[in-house]
Amino acid sequence: MIYITRRERFNAAHRLFREDFSDEKNLEIFGKCSNPNWHGHNYELFVTVKGEINKQTGFLVNLKRLSKIIRENIILKLDHKNINLEVEFMKDKLASTENLAVGIWQELEPHIKALGADLHCVKVTESENNFVEYFGD
Amino acid sequence: MIYITRRERFNAAHRLFREDFSDEKNLEIFGKCSNPNWHGHNYELFVTVKGEINKQTGFLVNLKRLSKIIRENIILKLDHKNINLEVEFMKDKLASTENLAVGIWQELEPHIKALGADLHCVKVTESENNFVEYFGD
Amino acid sequence: MIYITRRERFNAAHRLFREDFSDEKNLEIFGKCSNPNWHGHNYELFVTVKGEINKQTGFLVNLKRLSKIIRENIILKLDHKNINLEVEFMKDKLASTENLAVGIWQELEPHIKALGADLHCVKVTESENNFVEYFGD
Amino acid sequence: MIYITRRERFNAAHRLFREDFSDEKNLEIFGKCSNPNWHGHNYELFVTVKGEINKQTGFLVNLKRLSKIIRENIILKLDHKNINLEVEFMKDKLASTENLAVGIWQELEPHIKALGADLHCVKVTESENNFVEYFGD
Amino acid sequence: MIYITRRERFNAAHRLFREDFSDEKNLEIFGKCSNPNWHGHNYELFVTVKGEINKQTGFLVNLKRLSKIIRENIILKLDHKNINLEVEFMKDKLASTENLAVGIWQELEPHIKALGADLHCVKVTESENNFVEYFGD
Amino acid sequence: MIYITRRERFNAAHRLFREDFSDEKNLEIFGKCSNPNWHGHNYELFVTVKGEINKQTGFLVNLKRLSKIIRENIILKLDHKNINLEVEFMKDKLASTENLAVGIWQELEPHIKALGADLHCVKVTESENNFVEYFGD
Repeated sequence: MIYITRRERFNAAHRLFREDFSDEKNLEIFGKCSNPNWHGHNYELFVTVKGEINKQTGFLVNLKRLSKIIRENIILKLDHKNINLEVEFMKDKLASTENLAVGIWQELEPHIKALGADLHCVKVTESENNFVEYFGD
Repeated sequence: MIYITRRERFNAAHRLFREDFSDEKNLEIFGKCSNPNWHGHNYELFVTVKGEINKQTGFLVNLKRLSKIIRENIILKLDHKNINLEVEFMKDKLASTENLAVGIWQELEPHIKALGADLHCVKVTESENNFVEYFGD
Repeated sequence: MIYITRRERFNAAHRLFREDFSDEKNLEIFGKCSNPNWHGHNYELFVTVKGEINKQTGFLVNLKRLSKIIRENIILKLDHKNINLEVEFMKDKLASTENLAVGIWQELEPHIKALGADLHCVKVTESENNFVEYFGD
Repeated sequence: MIYITRRERFNAAHRLFREDFSDEKNLEIFGKCSNPNWHGHNYELFVTVKGEINKQTGFLVNLKRLSKIIRENIILKLDHKNINLEVEFMKDKLASTENLAVGIWQELEPHIKALGADLHCVKVTESENNFVEYFGD
Repeated sequence: MIYITRRERFNAAHRLFREDFSDEKNLEIFGKCSNPNWHGHNYELFVTVKGEINKQTGFLVNLKRLSKIIRENIILKLDHKNINLEVEFMKDKLASTENLAVGIWQELEPHIKALGADLHCVKVTESENNFVEYFGD
Repeated sequence: MIYITRRERFNAAHRLFREDFSDEKNLEIFGKCSNPNWHGHNYELFVTVKGEINKQTGFLVNLKRLSKIIRENIILKLDHKNINLEVEFMKDKLASTENLAVGIWQELEPHIKALGADLHCVKVTESENNFVEYFGD
C-alpha cells in the first residue's frame, strides 16, 4: 500500500453566516468572517490517494490523470468563484473549511475509484495557520 | 543605512472590472478575475523601511511599533474586507495588486516618517506566483 | 469525524543536559545542544483536534477559541522564555522536543475536551529539518 | 509512543521509461518524464521513526545519529546521481517516486532497528505539488 | 514605476564540466556536479518587469500574457530537458545557474519589450540554499 | 555583473537589554525580548555576492568555497551560541538583528574580497515576519 498526494490551488471568496441569524448574531458567532461584503482566500487542496503500485508503470496512479480529475471536478468549480453563491456542491451548506473538505471528498471519490485507487485524505489549507483534513467517515 | 522588513497578512475579496465596460469586455480584459460574484486571496504585505541604527537601542525602528502602524493603518482596513466596496483608499481605483501597493504606500508613508525612518518598499504578494513591489516613484 | 489543525509559534531558549552528568559527558551525549550558555529556536506548534462538525456553525471548533486556548495555556508560558528555567510543565524534564510535545499535550488536553473536541496530535517543529509528533499514548 | 521526523535532501536525474516499450509508447505512458536525455529534481526525504522516549536522554533517538544513518545509506547513494543508472537499490525498477520510497524504506529499515526505534514512514517529495508516502506494507 | 514578478518552475537535468578538462580536473573544479551521468534540479524562475501602471487596466502588464511569454520562450525549452544537450540558448556554455540566468534574460528581453514593459531581473533558484540574480548588465 | 546568494542557518540565544538600564526600563524598551533568562531563534543568513562570471568555470564564485567561508567565519561563531555572551564580534553591542547584520558584514567582507567577488548584501531573518538587510554603508 502506497500513498500519493497531489496539491492543487484555488482562490475564492466566501462568507460565514446563517440566513436565519441576524447580522449581530452572525457577527457574534462568525466574527469578521461574517462580513456581508465577502472576503477570500488562496486555498490549497491536498488530495491523497492510496493503493498498490502498478508493476507495469511503477505508478500508483498517473499523476497527470489525477491532476486532471481534481482540476475538472473541483478546481474549475471553485477557482475565482464565490463559494456561497456559485458552487453547486456547497449549496445550502455553511461555507466553512470543514464543509468544503467533506464536499470535495464527495465530489472526488467516485472519480478516484474509477482511476483504480482509493481516496485516503482531502486536506484543505485556508491560511498558513489553519487546515482541515477529512478521511471519509 | 540599514533596511528592515516586517511581514503582515490580510485576507480579502476583490474583483477586477471597469464599470464603463460590458461584462463581455471585462471578461476579455480581466479574465476570471472579473467574476461579478467576487473571489479572494490571502495577501502578504512586506513593508521595508530604511534609516540609521539608533545607538541607544540597536534598532532602526521598534518592530512592535512598526507592526502596530501597519496593522492600524492597513490591515484593519483590508483584512476580511471587500477591496472594491469597503476600502476608502482604493475607492474609484481598479483593485489590482499594483494599485494596492501604491495605495498602501500612500497610507503608510507619513506614519513611517513619524517613526523616524524612511519607507523603502511596499511588496504585496497575491499568490505564490505573483507579487508587486513599489518604491515610491 | 473531521480533523482541524491550528499553527502557533514561540521563540525560546533551551539547553540539553543532565545535572548529574559532567560537562564532558553532556557534550558527548547532547553535542552543541548542551552549551551551558543556552541556544534557542523558533518553534512551530501544530495542534490537531478531531470530532464532529457542528451543524449549527459548520465548525468542528471555533478557531478563534482554539487559538486562544493554545495561546493562554502554551504560548504565553513558552514564548520568549527559557524552557529549562521558566516553564513549570517542563520542570525536572530534559528540554527535548520529544518531552516538549508530551508536556504540551498534557497541558492542552483538558481544555480541548472542554471545547467539545478531542485532541488528536501535538506536533512541534524545532527546525526546518526536525519535528516531533505525539498522539497521546 | 512518540514520532520524530528528519528531513534530508538530494538532487538527482532520472527518467521514466521501460526498455521493452518503444519511444512512442514510453512517451504515451510517461509523457515528458520519459525524455531519453533525462531530467531531474530536488527531492526532499522525510524519515519518520517511532518508539519510546529514552528517560536518560529525553530522546527517542539521537537526531545526529539518525541523520548520519540517512546520509550514509541513502543520500550518498542518490545525491547528484542518475537514479536509473547509478543507484544499486533501484536497479531494474522504474525510477518512479513510488518505487523510490519503497526502496529507501528497504535500505533504511535495518539501520533504524539498530538505533532502537521503528521506521514509521518514508515520505519523498518530488516537487511542491507531489509527494509519496510509504508505511512499510 | 512599479515592479511585478512572476514565478514559473522547471525541472531539468544538467552537468557542470568542460570538454577540454579530464574527468579528474572536472571533478576537482566542479565536484559532484560534474557527474557524467547527470543530476538535476527543480528550478524556480522569478521574472521581474518594471514600468508604469496602465490607467485603463490598473496593470503594469497582463500577468496571463507575461506567464504565457515565459512559458513559451523559456519553460517549454527547459522543463524536463537536459540543459547541456537540448537547450539551444545554452549551447556551448557551461550549464551553471549564472549562465542560465543570463541566457534566460537574453531570450526574454525582446518579448518583455513587446509587452510594453522593461525586464528588470531574472532570478533562478537552484535549491533552497542557492540562487542567482541578473539585472542585465 | 551577476549576483549569487547563499543561505546558511544558525540557532542561537540572545537578549535585548542595556546594562545601564534597570530591568523595568529594559522591559519598557525591549519588551519580552529583554527576558534576563534569554530566548532564541532559528536565524537564516542570506549572503549575496556580486561580480563577473568566470569564463573558465561559468561561476561567479565556487559555491562550495563561499559556503565554507560563511560557515567558518560566521556560523561556527553563532550556531548554538549565546549571542550576548559568546560572540566576539558582537561584544559590547546590543544583540539586535540590525547589529548582527552589520557585524556579519564586517566579518565576511575581507574573505569575499579574497574570493574575487564583492559582498553585496547580508540579510538576516529572525522570524518568518522580520528580516534585516545591510548593503555595507
